Amino acid sequence: MNIALDAMGGDHAPREIVAGAVEAAREYGVVISLVGRPAAIEAELAKHDTAGLGLEIVPAAEVIEMDDKPARAVRNKPDSSMVIACNMVRDGRAQAFITAGNTGGALTAGILKVGRIKGVMRPALVTPFPTRKGFCVILDVGANADTRPEHMQQFGIMGSIYAERVFDVQNPGVYVLSNGEEAGKGNQLILSAYEALEQTPCINFCGNVESKEIMAGKADVVVTDGFTGNIFLKTSEALAGLVQSVMYEEFKRDPLSMAGALLARGGLRRVRRRMDDSQYGGAVLLGLRGPVIVAHGRSNATAIRHTVRVAKTAIEHDLTHRIEEAVLLSEGESLSELIPEPVIRSE
Amino acid sequence: MNIALDAMGGDHAPREIVAGAVEAAREYGVVISLVGRPAAIEAELAKHDTAGLGLEIVPAAEVIEMDDKPARAVRNKPDSSMVIACNMVRDGRAQAFITAGNTGGALTAGILKVGRIKGVMRPALVTPFPTRKGFCVILDVGANADTRPEHMQQFGIMGSIYAERVFDVQNPGVYVLSNGEEAGKGNQLILSAYEALEQTPCINFCGNVESKEIMAGKADVVVTDGFTGNIFLKTSEALAGLVQSVMYEEFKRDPLSMAGALLARGGLRRVRRRMDDSQYGGAVLLGLRGPVIVAHGRSNATAIRHTVRVAKTAIEHDLTHRIEEAVLLSEGESLSELIPEPVIRSE
Repeated sequence: MNIALDAMGGDHAPREIVAGAVEAAREYGVVISLVGRPAAIEAELAKHDTAGLGLEIVPAAEVIEMDDKPARAVRNKPDSSMVIACNMVRDGRAQAFITAGNTGGALTAGILKVGRIKGVMRPALVTPFPTRKGFCVILDVGANADTRPEHMQQFGIMGSIYAERVFDVQNPGVYVLSNGEEAGKGNQLILSAYEALEQTPCINFCGNVESKEIMAGKADVVVTDGFTGNIFLKTSEALAGLVQSVMYEEFKRDPLSMAGALLARGGLRRVRRRMDDSQYGGAVLLGLRGPVIVAHGRSNATAIRHTVRVAKTAIEHDLTHRIEEAVLLSEGESLSELIPEPVIRSE
Repeated sequence: MNIALDAMGGDHAPREIVAGAVEAAREYGVVISLVGRPAAIEAELAKHDTAGLGLEIVPAAEVIEMDDKPARAVRNKPDSSMVIACNMVRDGRAQAFITAGNTGGALTAGILKVGRIKGVMRPALVTPFPTRKGFCVILDVGANADTRPEHMQQFGIMGSIYAERVFDVQNPGVYVLSNGEEAGKGNQLILSAYEALEQTPCINFCGNVESKEIMAGKADVVVTDGFTGNIFLKTSEALAGLVQSVMYEEFKRDPLSMAGALLARGGLRRVRRRMDDSQYGGAVLLGLRGPVIVAHGRSNATAIRHTVRVAKTAIEHDLTHRIEEAVLLSEGESLSELIPEPVIRSE
């Protein structure tokens, strides 16, 4: 198993990325290709004891920066770490690609270079989302601005397999995000997607869900169009940030509250940890011929290590192949047609 | 000025509704028609000193309950407090309608009984939303499941007038909620709405906005389709609730944190107050021939009083007439055509 890791992407690259790779290689015994500028990577590796670890450097002269336009950057920077890493997945030299860099760049490089699984109409970005009980997965959170009902049907299939294979959820409950729980609630897109999901074999479709129930932990998989999913995710992050800054302002306003907050900092730290999704290992672009995983830009070594764990699990459980089978099944095609075709799988 | 108040709607009706009406009548000197079952209203009024206050009872035998289906309830309960109150606005016997009851029922009764302003294609539900700096207004948050770009153009006009007239914001900055700040971000609907808003006279359109910037206080008015707006609002409420329950759980886990939280309760109370929108007086269905205002189901007397204040301000500033003018102007029609037509205005 080989995982291509963009050593140059992220707010704390290459330091934290390389440190995370060292941790992951030691803990999970995987081989990690650090893709990027060799001198920078070597300098970071020198800070660690890497004897016996499966770490290799794959040179890439360019970097897709955070403010690069995705499509143009992927076209104009063929020697960038992202493009080279995606090419490795396409050619079977790696089974997954991880980056903490420019999300749009990663999605574009993934779709153009790694390529879609046969039968998948639109890849979708799936992310874990914290709930009172633990977490659920939600997709699409932004790979597609415009989504059709048949895309959302496939999102349901891919999300269900993802929850089952990567997070070991048995018979995951699949819901569609709507403006009311009852059947019949939603805009035209949601109503049509509901109908399509209801008729999809091999998934446990349970109907509509609202934000409140998602956060209470009712759903295992939440299906949404890429626009609404993006708004959902960013609104949640922004509201959590708003609460945090308002709390800080109000605690500062009187010494008693400030003292209380200091005393309660153990509890507050646990709250922050539970609300933090980095422990779940980033967002995955599903539907490609190898998982493309986008970690938070602010990822530290621990977040990168968790992301490698998710990649490893996805590869071991043959996520790509399972999605290909399920998508074909949902189209009513026979599974036997699939067998001759080579797919990317764990080694 | 007369405001029709549904005495029977809300979790704490009629007690808190009547108490709020008494407070508002005393503080703002308005006349309030308490619409509902006379015996229940009289029993509540008897608890207060109402001498000299402008309070009257308008009998209504029925109540649209929280679990009633809106359209059916409005049709089948012509003697309900909501329908009777809306008829008062339609007939000019009241200039605004307030309820803390079934939101769908209120919207349906408003649209069917009060009726739309000439030229308004779709009424929109607008609500104040707390930000770091204070609050903004956002619409539509749920009156329409499916929205077209031209509807959103009118939402921009109505929201702008609302912010200016009711909340005294000078030249309010109007933004459209999107999945990115740059022009060109968004789904097809947002792209078309952006174009329409850009060409709208008399509003200060400033482009796209993301959730994070909304909460930072960048926008005065946020335009969104009714589905996305509803998801935005409910996700914010749900996330705030999630943070609160996770905090409670984690504080309880160790005595030190619990003691700290108790010590900091003054600050925590101020946080809750800042995050609470009830002080801004509920959501208003804009585009009708008189404001229809939906207060939170859980409204207490204070929330009802604030809602009456919003209604009074809307009436005094002739909100309905101003919207009618602006909508006509945006269609390129001459203002002079408008003058002979009687409109609901403050007395």
